[in-house]
Amino acid sequence: METPLQTGEMEIRVRYAEVDAMGYLHHARYAVYFEMGRTELLRARGLRYRDLEAQGLFYVVARLDCRFRAPARYDDLLRLTTMTMRVTPVRVDHAYRLHHGDRLLAEASSTLVLVGRDGHPMRMPEALFDVLSAPPSGPAG
Amino acid sequence: METPLQTGEMEIRVRYAEVDAMGYLHHARYAVYFEMGRTELLRARGLRYRDLEAQGLFYVVARLDCRFRAPARYDDLLRLTTMTMRVTPVRVDHAYRLHHGDRLLAEASSTLVLVGRDGHPMRMPEALFDVLSAPPSGPAG
Amino acid sequence: METPLQTGEMEIRVRYAEVDAMGYLHHARYAVYFEMGRTELLRARGLRYRDLEAQGLFYVVARLDCRFRAPARYDDLLRLTTMTMRVTPVRVDHAYRLHHGDRLLAEASSTLVLVGRDGHPMRMPEALFDVLSAPPSGPAG
Amino acid sequence: METPLQTGEMEIRVRYAEVDAMGYLHHARYAVYFEMGRTELLRARGLRYRDLEAQGLFYVVARLDCRFRAPARYDDLLRLTTMTMRVTPVRVDHAYRLHHGDRLLAEASSTLVLVGRDGHPMRMPEALFDVLSAPPSGPAG
Repeated sequence: METPLQTGEMEIRVRYAEVDAMGYLHHARYAVYFEMGRTELLRARGLRYRDLEAQGLFYVVARLDCRFRAPARYDDLLRLTTMTMRVTPVRVDHAYRLHHGDRLLAEASSTLVLVGRDGHPMRMPEALFDVLSAPPSGPAG
Repeated sequence: METPLQTGEMEIRVRYAEVDAMGYLHHARYAVYFEMGRTELLRARGLRYRDLEAQGLFYVVARLDCRFRAPARYDDLLRLTTMTMRVTPVRVDHAYRLHHGDRLLAEASSTLVLVGRDGHPMRMPEALFDVLSAPPSGPAG
Repeated sequence: METPLQTGEMEIRVRYAEVDAMGYLHHARYAVYFEMGRTELLRARGLRYRDLEAQGLFYVVARLDCRFRAPARYDDLLRLTTMTMRVTPVRVDHAYRLHHGDRLLAEASSTLVLVGRDGHPMRMPEALFDVLSAPPSGPAG
Repeated sequence: METPLQTGEMEIRVRYAEVDAMGYLHHARYAVYFEMGRTELLRARGLRYRDLEAQGLFYVVARLDCRFRAPARYDDLLRLTTMTMRVTPVRVDHAYRLHHGDRLLAEASSTLVLVGRDGHPMRMPEALFDVLSAPPSGPAG
C-alpha cells in the first residue's frame, strides 16, 4: 500500500442494534464506521465536516470497496484506522482497516467527490485542499 | 458483463429514515437493499434464506464493491436487479443494478461465503447448489 | 379506542438487517415502520410528505409510546395499521397496530408537531388541515 | 421522579448516518442510544449483557415511552443519563435523559422483561437480581 498522506485512529464499540441474527456486526454498518473515521480525521486537522456542509460543500461517496476478513461481535471494542491516500481538487481517496485486538476484520477503500448544494461536482477551495493534503504535523498525524 | 445464471427484480421505496442530511439515500443503506435482492432471488427459486439458517447454513459477505452513480431521494420508488453471476460449492458471486426510472443509480458486486453455525466455511449441500446454479425455468427467471 | 379519523394499512416484510442477535425485529425499527405508515396514509389522501417538506413544512415527532407484545422475525410479512386519531392546526396524533397474521405484535401512539424550516412550531395551512382531518371518502379510507 | 436505584452517564456523538433530511437525529435512533446506556450501566456493575445472553438470559423491551423536547444535530456530543428505577425478578424499569450541554433533548422510560432462549418469560437468577438492584457503591454510582 502507498504511504498515506494522513492517518487517524479511533475506537468504536459495536452496538447491540448493529449486529445481525448471527450475532455479527452487519456488513452494512462498516460503511457507517468508515464515515465516522473520516469525520474524526477532519477533526484532527481542525475541520468539522458539519461546517463544510454549512458552507455548501458536500462529500458524496462515489465508490466503496470492502473486504470482510473476520466477524466483529456485539460489545467488541474495535480500532478503526482511516487513511487519506490521495487528494485532488475534485476528489479524495481513503483507505480503512478495522481491527479487534491484533485481528484484522476488514479492509476497505473509497472515493469521495465534492459537490455543491445543487449536487453538481465542484472544485475544492484551495484552503481546504491544503488542509486535506497536508502532511501530519506532529503527534496528531 | 457475463450472462447471469439467474436474475431477479424488485421494487424498493426509499424510507425517510434512510436518507441523510442532503436528502439522499445514505450510501450504507445500499448494502441492505442488495441483501433484500438476494432474499427475493432465493424466494423465486422456492427457497427461504430463513430456512437455510434454521438448517445451520449461513451466508457471510466476504466482499462488496459498489459504484454510486446518482443519488436516490426519499420516497423514490427504485428498481433493484439482482443477478447470480457464479456459484461454486463454497461461494456465490452476485451483481446488482439499482435504477430510478431509466436512470442507473448504482452498480455493485459481492462475494458470499457459506459458513456453518461455528462460523467456519463449509461446502454447500448438493441440493442447494443445484437450485442456486440452475438456469431460470420460465417467467420467474 | 376512539374512532380514527382516517385509517390505512400496508404490508412490510422484515429485513435481515433489521433483526437483532435474538433473531427478532429490533425494537428501534418499529418507529421506522410507523413513519412509513404515516407516509402511506398521506399518499392515500393524495399528498406526498416529500412535497410538504419542499414547501417548508416539517413534521417533528414530539412523543412516541410503544407497547411490544410479541416478537417479529426476519422475513415475516407484517401488516401495519396506521390511524389518524386527532388533528389540530399545530399537531397530529396517530395510533398504530402491527400484526403478523392474527397476532398483535405492537401497539403505539405518537404526537407530531408541525414546524417550519427554522425548526419553530407553525400552524398548518388550512388546505392541509382539511385533508388531514377529512373523513375517508370511499374505499381508500 | 423517584430516586433511581442506579444511575450511569455516557457521552454519544451523533453520527452522520443517524440524522434525517432535516439534519436532526432521527427519532428512531434514540432507542439505540438508550440501549447503549443500559449496556454501560451493567458494565459499571461488572456485568456484560453479552455474557448474560451467553448464559441464555435475554432482555426484551416490552414498553418504550419517549418525549422529544429539542433536536440533536450531526456531530453534537450528547450526554445520556440512564437510571434503573425499579427491579423485580421478572422485569426492570429504566428512565433516560438525553442532554446537549444544559439543554434537555429527550426524556424516556422503558420496561424490560427477562426471557429465556425459548422466548418465554423467566425469573432472574438471584445473583443478577442483587447486582441490578444494589445501591451504588462509591464513585461509579
